[in-house]
Amino acid sequence: MKVKVLQNIMDANDQIATRNQQLLDKNKVLALNIMSSPGAGKTSLILETIRRLKDTVRTAVVEGDIASTIDADRINKEEVPVVQINTGGQCHIDANMVNNALESLSLEDIDLLLIENVGNLVCPAEFRTGAHKRVMLLSVPEGDDKPYKYPLMFTLCQAIIVNKMDMLPLADFDITAFQRAVTGLNPKARIFQVSCKTGEGIENWVSWLEAELKDR
Amino acid sequence: MKVKVLQNIMDANDQIATRNQQLLDKNKVLALNIMSSPGAGKTSLILETIRRLKDTVRTAVVEGDIASTIDADRINKEEVPVVQINTGGQCHIDANMVNNALESLSLEDIDLLLIENVGNLVCPAEFRTGAHKRVMLLSVPEGDDKPYKYPLMFTLCQAIIVNKMDMLPLADFDITAFQRAVTGLNPKARIFQVSCKTGEGIENWVSWLEAELKDR
Repeated sequence: MKVKVLQNIMDANDQIATRNQQLLDKNKVLALNIMSSPGAGKTSLILETIRRLKDTVRTAVVEGDIASTIDADRINKEEVPVVQINTGGQCHIDANMVNNALESLSLEDIDLLLIENVGNLVCPAEFRTGAHKRVMLLSVPEGDDKPYKYPLMFTLCQAIIVNKMDMLPLADFDITAFQRAVTGLNPKARIFQVSCKTGEGIENWVSWLEAELKDR
Repeated sequence: MKVKVLQNIMDANDQIATRNQQLLDKNKVLALNIMSSPGAGKTSLILETIRRLKDTVRTAVVEGDIASTIDADRINKEEVPVVQINTGGQCHIDANMVNNALESLSLEDIDLLLIENVGNLVCPAEFRTGAHKRVMLLSVPEGDDKPYKYPLMFTLCQAIIVNKMDMLPLADFDITAFQRAVTGLNPKARIFQVSCKTGEGIENWVSWLEAELKDR
């Protein structure tokens, strides 16, 4: 009985996710589901991305948090449309929450939708939202062994961003070992090394994103 | 129907957690449920704690991970009993998993049981394990705003350990603002500032733990 109920929940989520993606496609919006541990730098990456693309790409943001509007308030200063989802304790955002957010955005005026998930390396990977690409950040202080411990997240993402490269001198992080671990799980993943603080490497991430936008 | 099923799951977990605690009490074992984001330093804290207490306290460890035995392998070198729980995708450890682990330990030969939960600031807070105290780590690079974003975890823990204090010069972390946020949610929580890398502040944490062990 229990399994059946859970199965139904996942099926329902997938159906709504598919409808979300159809709605995004109709409006020619590229949507990214951005995931990471708490404090890895999702909001900082979103801010950097908005600033670098602001002359050419119309970006909007959906902010997912269990509680608070701290991140939405930071995004709001960039004068892009931002919708806050408070999950009320739930450890991930699901397709229905994203559907509600889409309804409150003018999709015809948006090229790129950045969906910031709840900070969590586990559960967000399990729920489709309707976004076209899954993107994750890992910050250098978290350590290079994370692909072995959280394999689903590293397996599903098309882009993996190693953030806080400026902290490398203080951390025991072997970037070659990390790349090897990721490639073992997910050979097609693109890995970007960046520091949202110093700006290092952000241009490579933005170039990838611009190519994805052109492909649409 | 859905709510009822979930309610039953939580009730069943609580009942097993209560039995776990009775079993621990019967054997005069103090158990800690140690939680944090991925990579905040749970295993490093456990290693430091084992080393500092090894002449006076018989410690054992339960390692919870979604996959891999990386952390258990590190602990194993300290020659203390260690049991690995692999949750097989589940985002937290529950009372039943801990019950299985307790059955494979000689509880009469243990004073202190350190249970390392899955790296996740959300779900582990919701599931009682039977441990007497909840302890969490937050690492400095994660940022000082986390109590606002993950309030349940910060509300439930008796001890909150700020790790990676050696990274403070490179991080935008306001320790006073952090303490204020924690105190607002959880006025009784003890906050410890440590660096498992340099050893800074570990003695305060160990003193607290020794006092808790004496109280039993």
